[in-house]
Amino acid sequence: MTTTTSRSTGGRPVVPSSSVLRPLGLDEVRITGGFWADRQETNRVATLAHIEHWLEKEGWLGNFDAAVEGRLPAARRGREFSDSEVYKLLEAMAWELGRRPDGELDARFDAIVRRVAAVQEPDGYLSTMFGRPGQGDRYSDLEWGHELYCYGHLIQAAVARARTGGDQLLVDVARRAADHVCAVFGPDGRQGICGHAEIEVALAELSRVTGERRYLDQAALFVERHGNGTLRDIEFGRSYFQDDQPVREATVFRGHAVRANYLAAGALDVAADTGDRDLLRAVATQWQNTVARRTYLTGGQGSHHQDEAFGEDFVLPPDRAYAETCAGIGSIMTSWRLLLATGEARYSDLVERTLFNVVATSPAHDGTSFYYTNTLHQRVPGAVAPADVASVRASSSLRAPWFEVSCCPPNVARTFASLAAYFATVDEDGLQVHQYADAQIRTALPDGTPVEVDVHTDFPDSGVVVLRVLRDTGRDWSLRVRVPAWSASARLSTGGETWSVEPGTAEVRRTFLAGDEVRLELDVSPRVVTADDRIDAVRGCVAVERGPEVLCAESLDQTVDDVAELVVDPSLPLREEQGLVIATGRRSAPTDRAWPYAESPRTDRDGQGGGSGPADELLDVVLTPYHDWANRGPSTMRIWLPTT
Amino acid sequence: MTTTTSRSTGGRPVVPSSSVLRPLGLDEVRITGGFWADRQETNRVATLAHIEHWLEKEGWLGNFDAAVEGRLPAARRGREFSDSEVYKLLEAMAWELGRRPDGELDARFDAIVRRVAAVQEPDGYLSTMFGRPGQGDRYSDLEWGHELYCYGHLIQAAVARARTGGDQLLVDVARRAADHVCAVFGPDGRQGICGHAEIEVALAELSRVTGERRYLDQAALFVERHGNGTLRDIEFGRSYFQDDQPVREATVFRGHAVRANYLAAGALDVAADTGDRDLLRAVATQWQNTVARRTYLTGGQGSHHQDEAFGEDFVLPPDRAYAETCAGIGSIMTSWRLLLATGEARYSDLVERTLFNVVATSPAHDGTSFYYTNTLHQRVPGAVAPADVASVRASSSLRAPWFEVSCCPPNVARTFASLAAYFATVDEDGLQVHQYADAQIRTALPDGTPVEVDVHTDFPDSGVVVLRVLRDTGRDWSLRVRVPAWSASARLSTGGETWSVEPGTAEVRRTFLAGDEVRLELDVSPRVVTADDRIDAVRGCVAVERGPEVLCAESLDQTVDDVAELVVDPSLPLREEQGLVIATGRRSAPTDRAWPYAESPRTDRDGQGGGSGPADELLDVVLTPYHDWANRGPSTMRIWLPTT
Repeated sequence: MTTTTSRSTGGRPVVPSSSVLRPLGLDEVRITGGFWADRQETNRVATLAHIEHWLEKEGWLGNFDAAVEGRLPAARRGREFSDSEVYKLLEAMAWELGRRPDGELDARFDAIVRRVAAVQEPDGYLSTMFGRPGQGDRYSDLEWGHELYCYGHLIQAAVARARTGGDQLLVDVARRAADHVCAVFGPDGRQGICGHAEIEVALAELSRVTGERRYLDQAALFVERHGNGTLRDIEFGRSYFQDDQPVREATVFRGHAVRANYLAAGALDVAADTGDRDLLRAVATQWQNTVARRTYLTGGQGSHHQDEAFGEDFVLPPDRAYAETCAGIGSIMTSWRLLLATGEARYSDLVERTLFNVVATSPAHDGTSFYYTNTLHQRVPGAVAPADVASVRASSSLRAPWFEVSCCPPNVARTFASLAAYFATVDEDGLQVHQYADAQIRTALPDGTPVEVDVHTDFPDSGVVVLRVLRDTGRDWSLRVRVPAWSASARLSTGGETWSVEPGTAEVRRTFLAGDEVRLELDVSPRVVTADDRIDAVRGCVAVERGPEVLCAESLDQTVDDVAELVVDPSLPLREEQGLVIATGRRSAPTDRAWPYAESPRTDRDGQGGGSGPADELLDVVLTPYHDWANRGPSTMRIWLPTT
Repeated sequence: MTTTTSRSTGGRPVVPSSSVLRPLGLDEVRITGGFWADRQETNRVATLAHIEHWLEKEGWLGNFDAAVEGRLPAARRGREFSDSEVYKLLEAMAWELGRRPDGELDARFDAIVRRVAAVQEPDGYLSTMFGRPGQGDRYSDLEWGHELYCYGHLIQAAVARARTGGDQLLVDVARRAADHVCAVFGPDGRQGICGHAEIEVALAELSRVTGERRYLDQAALFVERHGNGTLRDIEFGRSYFQDDQPVREATVFRGHAVRANYLAAGALDVAADTGDRDLLRAVATQWQNTVARRTYLTGGQGSHHQDEAFGEDFVLPPDRAYAETCAGIGSIMTSWRLLLATGEARYSDLVERTLFNVVATSPAHDGTSFYYTNTLHQRVPGAVAPADVASVRASSSLRAPWFEVSCCPPNVARTFASLAAYFATVDEDGLQVHQYADAQIRTALPDGTPVEVDVHTDFPDSGVVVLRVLRDTGRDWSLRVRVPAWSASARLSTGGETWSVEPGTAEVRRTFLAGDEVRLELDVSPRVVTADDRIDAVRGCVAVERGPEVLCAESLDQTVDDVAELVVDPSLPLREEQGLVIATGRRSAPTDRAWPYAESPRTDRDGQGGGSGPADELLDVVLTPYHDWANRGPSTMRIWLPTT
């Protein structure tokens, strides 16, 4: 296993001090067109301003002004963690500024930072929720208070700012907050942790930005304090905030799905920077079991509405999927770190699945409304969410512009703004491309060899990806591409040669010359998938995928009114027509019965039992990408379709 | 439709002033042996004292003393509705005293009543939670404060006392509380309702006990105020407390399943006493749709953990079933009232199903631990609940002795103590027997004709029920028996004649002589049942029932370690051996895969896909009554079994 020492190249959310692969930053990878470029543009022109508008409208930004003006707690609005949404917007803006300088956006960023900075107390404490007369004491409610969680997002915003340039006020604020945290919660301080992991990952990255080892040490302390009964017990159980088992001893993610992933990401950062292979292995095992047993087809994680938590193994109901957008983002954070630490393609497979089917599903096409939860089955047409009122999290509505708990919109924004940083890496051997989009890659190998590659593709519509080398290099190097597990077959060709490649990583090694092309052909033909028998909730059903996209049947595209009437015949081939995937099925017309359970061999006694089977006549079942659903008004939808 | 005017006969929880059937009370029906007599005896000797012990231990009884001694709110313990658990214990004790006089129990009852009564304020207000300095103002939180809910249980306890005799202090307390409620919330008073329905059903019954019409009018007011946005909105939505739609306009039960049923029961009481056929029809429609689309095979209701609520139609996951014990009891309350109002056997069918499979499932065999929720599928062996600490509601433990929210144990206790009152009715035409147990029925028809019948049966083990008339009567009358919908065939015989009867109601009419016997033979042979296709969560599965009992496979009885390994072949016959029902199946040995979804036609690529089918060798799948499960230590269990 080779290890690359990190360089200070900017524009990267995650910069482990040692890793198998070195991540490339926003100044090294630029997405120039296609699926993700469209979403980045919408994020830039619509989402950032939308979020800022709602933060003002709901008074969550105003809380900072109220603090300065002595109007707290009376004037405070929003939940205990509302400060963090402001910080996530700052982080999104910072990455966006790293992607593309913009004086007006920079001024808005600075204006918000000044409002935040004004609230910081001399000792570094910063919260609009605690510590004033009439408020709870500082750190009086570590289980639910979210103070350290808020610092975490503050610090992540500062890290983004530090790595993308511009005024450093936010970095100074974050350092003071981090110093304060180390003073209060250090080795000799209070043996506490936050009920919502996040500070860990943030302190580790701040340590990388600043070179301050004690921030990393503090992150490690917080990681290790989990699982020792550090927090009070709560109704959801101690697993809710991963205080049930030490991180090193757990075998699967459990409890609140966002908390679980954020903690895992933090543990991986600590493992990377301390060379702790045991900790890395523990989290890798948890990831593996979670992916094998607790993850939806979409990559979504978390099947409990009650506690936004992972269910037990194989409890993955499509119609009560929680699959919180933020849990998807947390999963990407975790998978990305595991990729950097190991170089294994399976981690990027999950990143791709989660990006296309969770993160891309959350925002509406116009970027101003969002799903907080991402159900896999909508039984009743959703209502149009109120335009001017924050919605509840898991409402049965279409996407909503804002939520009372609104972690997801700014989380999507920061992810889209920094997305290119998750696409490619280098090591001493060469360049690795993990995600596919029209892109420009301009970097150098650790020995200084400049590498310039353009990527041309219509992915995911097409499976053809052409990587064009723009510059001669004096040495041979390896261009590695990920062959996704979903591609039934794949071919790689260059210099007139073509060969089959297996899922995992495929490689072309040569002394590349300007103009050399490597062409990857993935099989994006639609495919029928079935689930492990132990996922009881989808027994007897199939789903259809195409390339990285999970497809769904939305009622608006069907010849029946409700997707509940669709039954698919998986023995008949899928067709592609005019950009749509079409399965063949039949119409099921279930009979309403007084009691929905019927005796099996002796049916239809007294109006009970029976229910007619599917009709004989074949019908088309039109399938479209799941991430596109619910953009045309109320509808019913299902990913898993019963078979005949 | 005939209508019987109610008489003041005691020992009945529900005495509509007019109804098609007149309920018989505890002084008219006595359960003398068998399944339910055993549970009544356990309730008497173990459960009542167990509940009293925990009410003392947790300080919920002590709250009343603390109120008198001026130690509130500092000394208050328990949740905002803890007073109600004390009242439910009183109600259970009162019914038990009506069932069987017991000086020691009567003294305990009186002692508790005195502690409660001492807290009542001069204007009738009574709460340990609100109204004192440092507490919330009276009725300042109708959404969650539960003050009126607590009065409801206080009044129901008083009604039980009034109808079973003994000291009347509690009745006086309840009247003062009811007068206070009328004064505060009357037509010209505050237009509020309680966030948890219960006061409605209680005031209606108090009106029947006291003859005070205004209690009924107040109940009607509360019923009608639902659905007008009377309460503030909450995250779970206004449907949570049935404030989303007027009772007359709703078409199905929705929101919190206990609240929904309690409100329905109250509305039916109002409908009965005001002759409001529209209101009766509205609730009957809601019941019908709820039973057809939102009820588990067990009779359990409520599929959401988050808000203890009904899910959308056909969302009935076995492994995330909530099926709260109290919701089952509420369902029985509603069904019983619908039976009295209409005489239709389907209501008693649901009462029977819910009694055997929800209410009987909640307590352990020894009557000192309980299920709050009643899952239909236990995937991971439950832990032994702590013996000395109140458990959370939906823990993954075996039954627990007590809960932080402990509504279910005393609710089971009051139901068991009054159970005989749900077994038989009379009308001008004769006697109706709705539930089967060894029992003595001693009553009179409305014209005074004495009717004395003994019931002999080994139900539910046997389907043979013999009804023996003990007394000549000078007139002919009709003995009607319910033929449950589950009985594939049934025969009735008397006087040497035998005839087949259909599910519903079967009748023998004659001038009975002492010693006449009517013999009902129900088919309790085990039967395989399937679910409506729209209940996606159990597609491809079957369940097995026997008589009124839903059966389950518990791991302790199987030759495999975990019920997840069982697959049933429904084409092979069920067998009965030594009291066990045995299905034939195969062992499924699912393959662990890195990703639990596999491409359908091209499986087993790279270790993904595939998974072996069930083994060839046949094995026995041992099925036992669901209500018996989890009495022998940790196990896995499932009611719905996948088929080959």
